[in-house]
Amino acid sequence: MEQRAKTRTGEVMDAIRRKIAGRALSPGEKLPSIRRFADIMGVSPSTVVEAYDRLAADGVIRARPGSGFYVSGGAPPLAVAAVEPRLDRAIDPFWVSRQSLDAGAGMLKPGCGWLPADWMPQAAIRRALRHLARADDSVLADYGGARGSFALRRLLARQFADEGLAVGPDQILLTLSGTQAIDLICRFLLRPGDTALVDDPGYFNFQALLRAHQVRIVGVPYTPTGPDPALFAQALEQHRPRLYITNSALHNPTGATLSPQTAHTLLNAAAAHDLVVVEDDIFAGFEPTPSPRLAALDGLTRVIRIGSFSKTLSASIRCGYIAARPDWLEALVDLQVATNFGGPSPVATEIIVAALSDGSYRKHLDGLHRRLARARREAAGKLDMLGVRPWLTPRGGPHLWCRLPDGRDAAAVARAALRDSLILAPGNVFSVSQSADGFMRFNVAQMENPRVYEALGRILAAPPVAEGAGEDAGDHASRLTAPAPASA
Amino acid sequence: MEQRAKTRTGEVMDAIRRKIAGRALSPGEKLPSIRRFADIMGVSPSTVVEAYDRLAADGVIRARPGSGFYVSGGAPPLAVAAVEPRLDRAIDPFWVSRQSLDAGAGMLKPGCGWLPADWMPQAAIRRALRHLARADDSVLADYGGARGSFALRRLLARQFADEGLAVGPDQILLTLSGTQAIDLICRFLLRPGDTALVDDPGYFNFQALLRAHQVRIVGVPYTPTGPDPALFAQALEQHRPRLYITNSALHNPTGATLSPQTAHTLLNAAAAHDLVVVEDDIFAGFEPTPSPRLAALDGLTRVIRIGSFSKTLSASIRCGYIAARPDWLEALVDLQVATNFGGPSPVATEIIVAALSDGSYRKHLDGLHRRLARARREAAGKLDMLGVRPWLTPRGGPHLWCRLPDGRDAAAVARAALRDSLILAPGNVFSVSQSADGFMRFNVAQMENPRVYEALGRILAAPPVAEGAGEDAGDHASRLTAPAPASA
Repeated sequence: MEQRAKTRTGEVMDAIRRKIAGRALSPGEKLPSIRRFADIMGVSPSTVVEAYDRLAADGVIRARPGSGFYVSGGAPPLAVAAVEPRLDRAIDPFWVSRQSLDAGAGMLKPGCGWLPADWMPQAAIRRALRHLARADDSVLADYGGARGSFALRRLLARQFADEGLAVGPDQILLTLSGTQAIDLICRFLLRPGDTALVDDPGYFNFQALLRAHQVRIVGVPYTPTGPDPALFAQALEQHRPRLYITNSALHNPTGATLSPQTAHTLLNAAAAHDLVVVEDDIFAGFEPTPSPRLAALDGLTRVIRIGSFSKTLSASIRCGYIAARPDWLEALVDLQVATNFGGPSPVATEIIVAALSDGSYRKHLDGLHRRLARARREAAGKLDMLGVRPWLTPRGGPHLWCRLPDGRDAAAVARAALRDSLILAPGNVFSVSQSADGFMRFNVAQMENPRVYEALGRILAAPPVAEGAGEDAGDHASRLTAPAPASA
Repeated sequence: MEQRAKTRTGEVMDAIRRKIAGRALSPGEKLPSIRRFADIMGVSPSTVVEAYDRLAADGVIRARPGSGFYVSGGAPPLAVAAVEPRLDRAIDPFWVSRQSLDAGAGMLKPGCGWLPADWMPQAAIRRALRHLARADDSVLADYGGARGSFALRRLLARQFADEGLAVGPDQILLTLSGTQAIDLICRFLLRPGDTALVDDPGYFNFQALLRAHQVRIVGVPYTPTGPDPALFAQALEQHRPRLYITNSALHNPTGATLSPQTAHTLLNAAAAHDLVVVEDDIFAGFEPTPSPRLAALDGLTRVIRIGSFSKTLSASIRCGYIAARPDWLEALVDLQVATNFGGPSPVATEIIVAALSDGSYRKHLDGLHRRLARARREAAGKLDMLGVRPWLTPRGGPHLWCRLPDGRDAAAVARAALRDSLILAPGNVFSVSQSADGFMRFNVAQMENPRVYEALGRILAAPPVAEGAGEDAGDHASRLTAPAPASA
């Protein structure tokens, strides 16, 4: 027994040493709390206490009284970081994004929200880069205009005109990303303590963003044809939200499409309660045929349209946009100057204009639609064999919102999957009400490797593991709203 | 007399029509108030009233009762925008940035804060782009890691080590710009109603940014060796600020250098009052020899280092960074995920790493230092002939902070210069206390065209024009903190 405890202490010590060597823990970084690390390693807290004490004696880590243990300082080795999955991260709205963004090369990412790089129009991007290498000096080294590239705004205005939305290029502001577009709008319209409405389930980062703005978040249950109109009206009545953020074209995570009736009803309710609607059109390129758009119905009176190019062109070349009423847009331009000294890189917008204007882009989109439809069928078939069933079959896009079999807890499955180098998107990260614990969002474009299904099958076949309580919920998010004091 | 009034009305109407045709006023955009436009055009308010009424009768603009006049809607022409200087903009912290960013090709910009594009390392950037056209798919189309390019963070960590600041790559977060770096820090540390300290004079966009965070701004008078230590201590005592934002290397706008004594004294005062200091190192590349750095003295205990590559590499390829305590940095990473879904474009960071690692970069900097020293001597000599004298001679960088002759008002000179297609940076945009109306910041790298001195000479030789009161000050900035209501 003592021997076994010693071995376990050694295992914990080895795990910490590996994290430090692999730079998953940096000099000066705080180690996980003893309780949390005991949970992660499946050992008793006293084993972790002993391991931490011995590592401190070795000088590998050091204790700060009343604060915890920290990795010792000293000039760190300048080796290439071996990124490891962060097993100790809480299942919160940051869970999927941080895991997906920082995934190492060996990780599979059915939980991430974008396409593999080789599904993107690589040839067009490379042509754009070679073209850019011969551009004017000012494109390569000067700031762009405060609204960003006129050529790209004109191109967007033409796209909008095609959907019946008459917007001049000056009513468009280019931003650094789709997310930053919404962030600017939140800065403009929201104050701490205001209320904002999101879909439930809905895109997890809307929650993370709204929390950063210290607003109350209210979720409206999402149906296969949009938010439930009666509950939407009730939420407006009861909570008087200032803003509603939603996806158009294909809803994230469900892949559902807004019906014309729901769109019309929502806008009437919004008008009656003086609600501003942000329509995130980021999935437009995935649509095989057009669906109702709030911005087009409303004519940008109270709807603000945002979007980006990261889903069907490149997530690396960062750029988003806002189309809004001229008076609002002018204030948003100033806010972007104040907070970012202007818009996206002229280098980025040149590449985007070139790639979008490249004759091959329409063909690329058609190819994507076919490839995604095939991948969707295949993934749905294989998931079905595991008892994992989609809530609905989307018209396009990479997402399948699925119910897990046998009341399995998606967070527990996602945690187990991480140990198998699999990043999943458990339902509750999308749910303000935390009512989607039996759901999981899958990205069919990231599931071509059979290892995905092998690992999922193994995890779902094993009996459920009891989860350590108190790790999920809001303790992580609260860090954003209650910053560390400036103590030395 | 009646004939003359008619002509004037026609002139005002023509001016509005030109603005609309040139897209300086967009469909739906609000026209300047009658009083303001009367001031700008040098006509009586009744002339403007008549002009607006007649344009409204023509359908060119329309009145909204109780609100003012707006440009009529309708699908705007998709022609290339002819950018015009905005004569009606208030002289506030946005004045220089918006004018400089949106300057048309014919404008000269001695007031802007960056180098002409052909002073930048164009050959290295073009080599980097050609190289990038052959990069891995994932660099061209995938999101980067949440902290951004490891290669660039390692390169920065090595630079920091050279100045005696031991920081691991994981203690560095890449951001979308230097300004966005400060914005993230403000989000993390400040709450509406907090107080922040800036230099007076100091970089105007610090004011714009802090106003967007709805904090009180207190200025500390800047001396040739840094902020006045006694007044700095007094401001801490009296206002209990949470944050102080300043430039290292070469202060903006004065070009002054912090002395070792002042640096040491400031940090002691900061420690005594639990103040966090943001050191903006954006001008580091302009320094011929190193000067004291707060971050290096403090070891990143309460100092946060930020910077970017826009001054000596490229303002187009947008990227900044933050180096901070590990616990703060981790929260900043989450905030950047929430508000921008991660960091800068991998495309951007690849170009920057390649250009900085290019053997030619050190030589480029040496060349810049020589070229700037020569330009500084020449500009100082020519300005001297006009009676414009620098407050001090900076050790490097493009800026000369100059006193105008004969008590001339810098805002009036800057307004007059705009009519001559010259963008200037009048002193008070840099001054929280509005006490720098006799000063002007010049950028010697933007003054090679003799037209700059001809126009300046003409304006300074003419008798001062009385300025319309009430246009400057904070009415513009207040738009950011009191957003338009969501009325249809």
